[in-house]
Amino acid sequence: MDLNSDVGESFGTYKLGLDEEVIPYITSANIACGYHAGDPGVMRKTVALAKQHGVEVGSHPGFPDLMGFGRRNMDATLEEIQDYVIYQTGALWAFARSQGMKLQHVKAHGSLYNMAVANPKIWEAIAEGVVKVDPELILVVLASSQREPLLEIRKRHGIRIAFEAFPDRAYHQNGSLVSRREKGAVIHDHELVAQRALKMALEEKVVSIEGTEIELKADTLCVHGDNPSAVQMVKRIREELKASGVEVIAMRHFV
Amino acid sequence: MDLNSDVGESFGTYKLGLDEEVIPYITSANIACGYHAGDPGVMRKTVALAKQHGVEVGSHPGFPDLMGFGRRNMDATLEEIQDYVIYQTGALWAFARSQGMKLQHVKAHGSLYNMAVANPKIWEAIAEGVVKVDPELILVVLASSQREPLLEIRKRHGIRIAFEAFPDRAYHQNGSLVSRREKGAVIHDHELVAQRALKMALEEKVVSIEGTEIELKADTLCVHGDNPSAVQMVKRIREELKASGVEVIAMRHFV
Amino acid sequence: MDLNSDVGESFGTYKLGLDEEVIPYITSANIACGYHAGDPGVMRKTVALAKQHGVEVGSHPGFPDLMGFGRRNMDATLEEIQDYVIYQTGALWAFARSQGMKLQHVKAHGSLYNMAVANPKIWEAIAEGVVKVDPELILVVLASSQREPLLEIRKRHGIRIAFEAFPDRAYHQNGSLVSRREKGAVIHDHELVAQRALKMALEEKVVSIEGTEIELKADTLCVHGDNPSAVQMVKRIREELKASGVEVIAMRHFV
Amino acid sequence: MDLNSDVGESFGTYKLGLDEEVIPYITSANIACGYHAGDPGVMRKTVALAKQHGVEVGSHPGFPDLMGFGRRNMDATLEEIQDYVIYQTGALWAFARSQGMKLQHVKAHGSLYNMAVANPKIWEAIAEGVVKVDPELILVVLASSQREPLLEIRKRHGIRIAFEAFPDRAYHQNGSLVSRREKGAVIHDHELVAQRALKMALEEKVVSIEGTEIELKADTLCVHGDNPSAVQMVKRIREELKASGVEVIAMRHFV
Repeated sequence: MDLNSDVGESFGTYKLGLDEEVIPYITSANIACGYHAGDPGVMRKTVALAKQHGVEVGSHPGFPDLMGFGRRNMDATLEEIQDYVIYQTGALWAFARSQGMKLQHVKAHGSLYNMAVANPKIWEAIAEGVVKVDPELILVVLASSQREPLLEIRKRHGIRIAFEAFPDRAYHQNGSLVSRREKGAVIHDHELVAQRALKMALEEKVVSIEGTEIELKADTLCVHGDNPSAVQMVKRIREELKASGVEVIAMRHFV
Repeated sequence: MDLNSDVGESFGTYKLGLDEEVIPYITSANIACGYHAGDPGVMRKTVALAKQHGVEVGSHPGFPDLMGFGRRNMDATLEEIQDYVIYQTGALWAFARSQGMKLQHVKAHGSLYNMAVANPKIWEAIAEGVVKVDPELILVVLASSQREPLLEIRKRHGIRIAFEAFPDRAYHQNGSLVSRREKGAVIHDHELVAQRALKMALEEKVVSIEGTEIELKADTLCVHGDNPSAVQMVKRIREELKASGVEVIAMRHFV
Repeated sequence: MDLNSDVGESFGTYKLGLDEEVIPYITSANIACGYHAGDPGVMRKTVALAKQHGVEVGSHPGFPDLMGFGRRNMDATLEEIQDYVIYQTGALWAFARSQGMKLQHVKAHGSLYNMAVANPKIWEAIAEGVVKVDPELILVVLASSQREPLLEIRKRHGIRIAFEAFPDRAYHQNGSLVSRREKGAVIHDHELVAQRALKMALEEKVVSIEGTEIELKADTLCVHGDNPSAVQMVKRIREELKASGVEVIAMRHFV
Repeated sequence: MDLNSDVGESFGTYKLGLDEEVIPYITSANIACGYHAGDPGVMRKTVALAKQHGVEVGSHPGFPDLMGFGRRNMDATLEEIQDYVIYQTGALWAFARSQGMKLQHVKAHGSLYNMAVANPKIWEAIAEGVVKVDPELILVVLASSQREPLLEIRKRHGIRIAFEAFPDRAYHQNGSLVSRREKGAVIHDHELVAQRALKMALEEKVVSIEGTEIELKADTLCVHGDNPSAVQMVKRIREELKASGVEVIAMRHFV
C-alpha cells in the first residue's frame, strides 16, 4: 500500500502544511505546481525534502485560482484542462530532474479532481495529457465502485492508474464519498481511521455510512499534514499497517 | 547562422505578434512560458506551429510580471531567478515532449536578459538552472566584445552557449548595445539591417554607432515578428543570407 | 435610450477593442477593473477618454480569471462575488474621482453576468454590494420577460436598476437570449440590428427567433467596439435612433 | 502619538499575522489591498475588525508581486506607481465605505516604501495620487532628519503627511534606518523598544546606533503583529506611553 499526501502548498511568504513532519511518513508526495498553490522556490524545496526521505514525487495540478486555492469549480474546457495539467506537470518535472529525481505520478487537486470524479471526460483529458508528457507516469484517481470508465481510459490510453482511498472520509454504500457538507463526512478519531486504513489494505473493504460493508480496491491512501493532529494520524496509520504486515511502499513498485 | 525570434506571446483572449507569419522564416523559436506572456494553450499552439515548419523550440523565461510584460527590472535573488528559469523551461518542455519535440535552447526575456547582460552572476544562475534541467540545452546570450565571463561560465558548468546579435540594433564600439532610450538605437531600414545581418554572418563584424568596425561573433541573429514590416524584414534578411551562401540552420547543429 | 459598451479591456502590452473609436458614440462606458481584463493604467486612460467625450463611466467587474477573460463560470460564493464587485468598483471609483468624475453604474462582466441571469441570488449579492458602496450607483441587468425578481431586489435594497437589451442578439419568445452556441444567436446585418434597436426604443418590443413579437423594456442597449464593423454598427444604431427622434442619453438621467 | 501596524496580509487560504490580537492595541491599521497581499474577503474582514475596535483604516498599497510579498524592488515608472496607489486605495475605500467607515491614510508597503525613501520623486508620485483620490487622506512617510523634500511635497500638493518612526529599528546618526542586512538593525528587547518609543513620543529623539542622540519628529510609531512576541511588544509600548501620559490617538486628530 502507498501513502500519498498533498504537500508543497506554501506560497511566497505564506506557509501552509507541516511538510517537514508528514513527508517522512508517506511514500508519494503530491506537490502543488503554482496554479492553486506552490511557487518555484517551494517546489524546489519540497522536491528536496521528498528526496531526502526517499519519497516519490508527483505533480498536483489544479485550476489557476490561487485566491480560491483551486477549490472552486471552473468551467474550463477539456483542452484547457489538459493544457493546465501538462504545464504544471512539466514545471515540476524540471525541479525533479534538476535534483536527479523522476516524477512518479500526477494527482489532480481540489475542484479539478472533484470535477473529474463527476465527469469521466475530464479524467480522460487529464490522462491523455499525462501520457503525452510521459507514459511512465501514474495517474491517481478516486477508488469507488465505479471503476469501469477508468479501466477503459487505462486501456484506451495505455496509462498507469493508481486508485486512491480516503481512510478518514465516510463512503456511501454505492462507493461514493459522503459530501463534506454532510454530517459525518470526515472522521476525526485516529484509532478508527487507522482501522479503516487497515481494512482497506487487508480486505479491500470499507464500512459505508449506511452501515454496510462495501468493496474498495485502493493502491494508495490519502493522508494529511495540515496540522499536528493530522500528522499524528499519519504516523498511527503507518504503524497500524506495518504492525499488520502491510508493506508501505511507493505506488510505482506495484501499479 | 541561426535566426531566432520571440514568439508565443499571446495570452488568453489577447493576441500579440504575427507568429504564423514569422515562424516559417526562422530556425529557433523562443516561446514565452506564462510568466511575462504566454499561457498553456498558447504554448501548445506555438510548439505545434514551430513543429509544422521544422523550427526548433526553446523556452523564453521572464519575470513573473504579466502586467509589465517582463520588461521591468525586479530585485529577485539569484536563487529565485534560477527557480523561475527551471519552472518555465519545464513547463515548455512538457508541451514540446507532448508533441514529440525536444527543447533546443533557453533565452531569457526582457529585463531578465538585460539584467544578466549587466551582471554575469545572473547569467551564471540561469546557466546553472538550465544545465540542471538538461545539459543538452543551449543558453542564448548577448554577443559583445565581453565574452570572457560567458566563456568561463560555459567552462565551469559545461553548458552549450549561443551568442546572439541584433542586426536592427546599433552597437557601441565597446560592443555593447546602444540603449533604446538613445537616438538611433533601432535601425528601421530593411536593406541596411539585411546588410548588417550579412556582415555579421560573413565577417563577424558590425559597424558601431561611432563609425568604427568592431568584431561581433554571433551564432544566432534575433529577428522580430511584431508587425507586417518586421516580418518583411525577416524575409529580407533570410534572402540576403541565402543569396550570399550563408546557411540558415538551427543553432543545435553547430553550437 | 442609453447606449453602453464594454471598454478598457486592454491589459499591459496587450491591446483589445477600439475604445477610441466607439466611445464617442456611446453614453455609458463599462470599464474593466483588472480582474478579467484591464489594469490600473488602462483604467486611468479609459476614464480620461470617456470624460473627453462626455460619456458616463461604470465599473465592469468580472471573475478573477484573466486567462479566461472572465468568461468561465466559477463556483464563487455569494459573499466572494459581492466582495469582488466591491473591490473592483472601488478601484474604478478612485480613477473616476481622481479625474473629477463620478461612477454612474455597475455592470457585471461575462460569466458573472450570465450566472446572475440564471440565478437571481447572484443579482442580489451584486446589488447589495453596489448599494453598500454607493446607493446612487445604477446596476445594469438583463431585460427579459422575467422582471419580477429584479424589481423585488430593487425594492428590497433601494437600488437603481437599468434594464439592458442586445439589439444584435436573438431572443426566444420567453424573453431569454438565444445561446451563442445556437445558430442565429448573433445578428450581423447592420441595418437589421439598427431596426431592432429602434423597435426596442420606440415600441419596447423585439421579434423573437420563433417569429413572435415580444415585449422588452430596456433602458440601455449594449453595443460593441471590438472591430471596425462593430463600430460602424454602433454609428448606424445611433443615427437610426436620432433620425427617429429617440434621445440618446446616459442612463443616470432617467433611471 | 499614533500607533500603526500592517494588517490584512492574509490571502485566500493563507493566514498571516495576528490581526485579531494586535488591532485592539493600535490606532491606525494599514490594510493590504490585493497586490502584494490581501484579497477582497480579507480586506472586508480586516475593515470590520478595525471598526469593531474603533481603529482607523488606511490603504497599504504595494507592488503587484504576491510571490515576493511586495518586497522586491520593481522598476515601475512614476506613472505606474501612482496608478497602483490609486487602484489599491480605491479598492480599500469601497470596503471602508461599505461598512460606514472613511479611509484615514495611505502607507506604501515594502519595496514601494523603501524606494520612495530613496527617491523623493516616488513620494511625490504617491502623494499626487493620494490627493487626487481624496485630499483629506494622510500620507504616512518615514521620519528622518531629511524632512525638507517631504515638506515641499506637502506644500506643493496640499497633502496631509504623517511622519512615522520605528521604535524597534536602529537609526544612524544621520537619521536613516540601519539596513536590515546589518547587525543590530532590529531591536528585540521589549523593554528597550518601549523606552525608545517613549523617548520618541516625549522628546522627539532617538539614540543612534553610533551612540549619539538625534532628533526624530514622529506622528506615528510602526508596530508589528506577526507573532505573539510582537503583540506583547505592542502592548508594552502602549502601556509605557499611557503610563507616561502620552495620548495614544489616531493620526487624523492631530496631523
